[in-house]
Amino acid sequence: MTVSRGAQIAARLLSRGSKTLASNTSLAVRRPVKGHVHQIRNAAPLHTREPQHAQARAVRDEESDEPPVSTNPAMSFPCLDASEQKTAALLGRSHASGPEPSYTTGNHMVFHSSDPILLDWGGILPSFDIAHETWGTLNADKSNAILLHTGLSASSHAHSTEANPKPGWWEKFIGPGKPLDTERFFIICTNVVGGCYGSTGPSSLDPSDGQRYATRFPILTMDDMVRAQARLLDGLGIEKLYASVGASMGGMQSLAFGVHFPERVGRIVSISGCARSHPYSIAMRHTQRQVLMMDPKWNRGFYYDGVPPHHGMKLAREIATVTYRSGPEWENRFGRQRADASKPPALCPDFLIETYLDHAGEKFSLEYDPNSLLYVSKAMDLFDLGFAHQEATRARRQQNEGKLASLTRGGDVPAQGDPSCSLTLPTKNYEETISTAPMDEAVSSGGMSGPPADLVRGMAPLRNHPVLVMGVASDILFPAWQQREIAETLQATGNEKVRHFELGEEVSAFGHDTFLLDLENIGGEVGRFLR
Amino acid sequence: MTVSRGAQIAARLLSRGSKTLASNTSLAVRRPVKGHVHQIRNAAPLHTREPQHAQARAVRDEESDEPPVSTNPAMSFPCLDASEQKTAALLGRSHASGPEPSYTTGNHMVFHSSDPILLDWGGILPSFDIAHETWGTLNADKSNAILLHTGLSASSHAHSTEANPKPGWWEKFIGPGKPLDTERFFIICTNVVGGCYGSTGPSSLDPSDGQRYATRFPILTMDDMVRAQARLLDGLGIEKLYASVGASMGGMQSLAFGVHFPERVGRIVSISGCARSHPYSIAMRHTQRQVLMMDPKWNRGFYYDGVPPHHGMKLAREIATVTYRSGPEWENRFGRQRADASKPPALCPDFLIETYLDHAGEKFSLEYDPNSLLYVSKAMDLFDLGFAHQEATRARRQQNEGKLASLTRGGDVPAQGDPSCSLTLPTKNYEETISTAPMDEAVSSGGMSGPPADLVRGMAPLRNHPVLVMGVASDILFPAWQQREIAETLQATGNEKVRHFELGEEVSAFGHDTFLLDLENIGGEVGRFLR
Repeated sequence: MTVSRGAQIAARLLSRGSKTLASNTSLAVRRPVKGHVHQIRNAAPLHTREPQHAQARAVRDEESDEPPVSTNPAMSFPCLDASEQKTAALLGRSHASGPEPSYTTGNHMVFHSSDPILLDWGGILPSFDIAHETWGTLNADKSNAILLHTGLSASSHAHSTEANPKPGWWEKFIGPGKPLDTERFFIICTNVVGGCYGSTGPSSLDPSDGQRYATRFPILTMDDMVRAQARLLDGLGIEKLYASVGASMGGMQSLAFGVHFPERVGRIVSISGCARSHPYSIAMRHTQRQVLMMDPKWNRGFYYDGVPPHHGMKLAREIATVTYRSGPEWENRFGRQRADASKPPALCPDFLIETYLDHAGEKFSLEYDPNSLLYVSKAMDLFDLGFAHQEATRARRQQNEGKLASLTRGGDVPAQGDPSCSLTLPTKNYEETISTAPMDEAVSSGGMSGPPADLVRGMAPLRNHPVLVMGVASDILFPAWQQREIAETLQATGNEKVRHFELGEEVSAFGHDTFLLDLENIGGEVGRFLR
Repeated sequence: MTVSRGAQIAARLLSRGSKTLASNTSLAVRRPVKGHVHQIRNAAPLHTREPQHAQARAVRDEESDEPPVSTNPAMSFPCLDASEQKTAALLGRSHASGPEPSYTTGNHMVFHSSDPILLDWGGILPSFDIAHETWGTLNADKSNAILLHTGLSASSHAHSTEANPKPGWWEKFIGPGKPLDTERFFIICTNVVGGCYGSTGPSSLDPSDGQRYATRFPILTMDDMVRAQARLLDGLGIEKLYASVGASMGGMQSLAFGVHFPERVGRIVSISGCARSHPYSIAMRHTQRQVLMMDPKWNRGFYYDGVPPHHGMKLAREIATVTYRSGPEWENRFGRQRADASKPPALCPDFLIETYLDHAGEKFSLEYDPNSLLYVSKAMDLFDLGFAHQEATRARRQQNEGKLASLTRGGDVPAQGDPSCSLTLPTKNYEETISTAPMDEAVSSGGMSGPPADLVRGMAPLRNHPVLVMGVASDILFPAWQQREIAETLQATGNEKVRHFELGEEVSAFGHDTFLLDLENIGGEVGRFLR
């Protein structure tokens, strides 16, 4: 058995002062005395405030030269030991085999666009790849294609293929006679632009210099992602989709595809998505990004030559997991159980729920590109199908069309280090003002006054599409009220073909991740809607 | 204007490869070509997979020696710049004035117990301090005292005093004619053991060697905290409290005081507390602890001689703030507003909700001792008023009584580095099993089958006390169902003096922090109950 790192540190720190230390046998506390109350005026630094300790130490020093003993044993930190060992192992691997990891979920198809794409916030990808996989057969008039959109960190591998027999993330939902019926439909799933599973993202090479984009990658939006997917459809010669289907971030994209290309899609499925992000989900993604960016190994995005920020990624995923899975199910599965009740409590993972989160974070920490997490999660924050937002984007795109034209004419791309690209915090700190005024119904959602007019106007392109909207009552990340918002907004556009289902807590206790798990209720409804 | 750090890093990284770089004017993308689809088989490392780039670079290298230009400008990271500047400033300050900060909220009273205290998990404090403040006058028979328990990070400064005129954290709730009426009651508020505002905690000196406890501080429980408070009451000569009052962690303590000292308290108020922790709140506190412990400056708790882990503390507080304040109010106050809509989006704080969290974290980052956060939040996780848990604790305390006896006889304290104190993770990873079986009603709360029998038995000591239980529907950290659990459990003990109020979302949209803000509803009910 080796001495724990914590104990070593403690011992080292203690040894600095060992000359002034003695064994505890001379402790003053041997003389029990009554307590007393005194007034502290302006707490002074400890070394001047408690001279009796210095005195006591001096006295004891003369008495004994025994090694220092603290009143209680030092804590050990196996979770930090594990992280340090992982860093060392990754460092060794990186020296042996060059800078890795390369993120992959296996064999897939790639659509390469040599045409540049202008992004909503003015960025440009001179060319880009879209990784994708397909299941079923495209019919002769190419009218049976379903575009399946993924969640944040998923690859195109929704189902096993001949080229990659590993089970996909929606394995049970796709196949002959399944909700996405491959006897009838041609299913396409892509890795989003900004991702790392074969599509162009921050870990890709910037063609301007052959170096990784890293944080020179431009800001992305959901609309940019579906715009890139439309290019893939062009490439496949598919004019109009039978349906656009997605859950979570894929639900956002499914709606976005319909709003931006209403003539290119027949019907829409949005599961546990939203029409616009809301502050709680932005806040939770914010904390994930900040934690990742705090990891010194993140190095402002330029970590590809070294050890990746695995610790920051792990913790970001732990936070994400809370938003994906917490719910009544956790009460039942974990409750207040500790992983090993025979051991004393620890600051490292201790309760069963903690070891579960630790494991979920650990598993993910090297599976996904940290910069992709930042860019794609940011794109989710920016999502808003409101009309004003769409108009502002249109205006910005028009302004920036020149960049694209200039690029395709052989001109310059925008100069590097454009100061307008660094958002600096307002110099004045956020001032909290407590208002007890009633909620602004125009802003708040789910109010009695119906969906906001701006959102109704923004989603009007979907007024004639059959739309299936599904939500889960135990979902805290894309809460059920956001699904109601989608459905009510669509109904307010005049759409009479909206189907809205909410899975109550008695049906699913799995929170946001229900869409990955509940073949019967989620899958069943999707299958019936597509029939 | 200085060049941003991000741009500098990017430039440095780019310059490494500048020999192979050229201006973008020779980009291949000038020739628009149709996209194409190809199959990737086993994605190889990028440098072997994309030889065309290496070729292109070589060609361009001969053409031009211009400085490298990336397709899009590099991002800048003002939030990381600010953190680095803060570290530098703290380092300068620490060199100038010695290791600080010392945490204080100003003048207060201190009760010093020279008697050791045995803690629930076997730790020992050979002596300890309890910082406290009081308002009102203790009557002749000492029957009008109310013990006010605090939330996690609060000091004893609940209200301004002559010695410290700064407004306290419950300023409006305490005073003549206020809910805690100083005309009638003698209000006592303490800083909990484990805290850093004058009570003994990890930043205190271990009397065995005169060094800071740091993570040699023993694991604490809520019961330990109220046990220490009982010592203070002994010191003040108060046999029986008129009432025990608290919100959040203070709600836990208020109940714990009643359960463990039923004869020493007349009535109980628990606001947004709980009878036992639940997995979501443990998970959220877990992520806060892990983020803090990930900060290299935390140094396994031994940071007192250097720069404290301000960045980890800041992010931990941001996560905490989400749990304290998210709710319908955020929709109204922040919605999807960006801090400065004229700027492009950024990975540093950008949306108004992000700058709010950033500010909340920043404000707290040096205000509270990081080790106190770890120990006190851990104590909250461990809270459980169930009978089985109480019995196990009693048995453990009996086993450990020997330590205390030995210490007071002048014997040894437990040996340092006791291996039983390092919880190691189970060697087998947590295996996820998806069960769609119905919830176990004995474990789940709020079920139709009533409160769990073990909890009813554990809270039986309160069967005759008038108890006020208040909850807030928009609270996600101590959700309303936990308040119902307290009330129903007490009723199941046979208690007929339970008053339970739940503030609906139409009354308060402020989530968990409602207890700090809502004088009318929270304060009003407390005042009426104490009358």
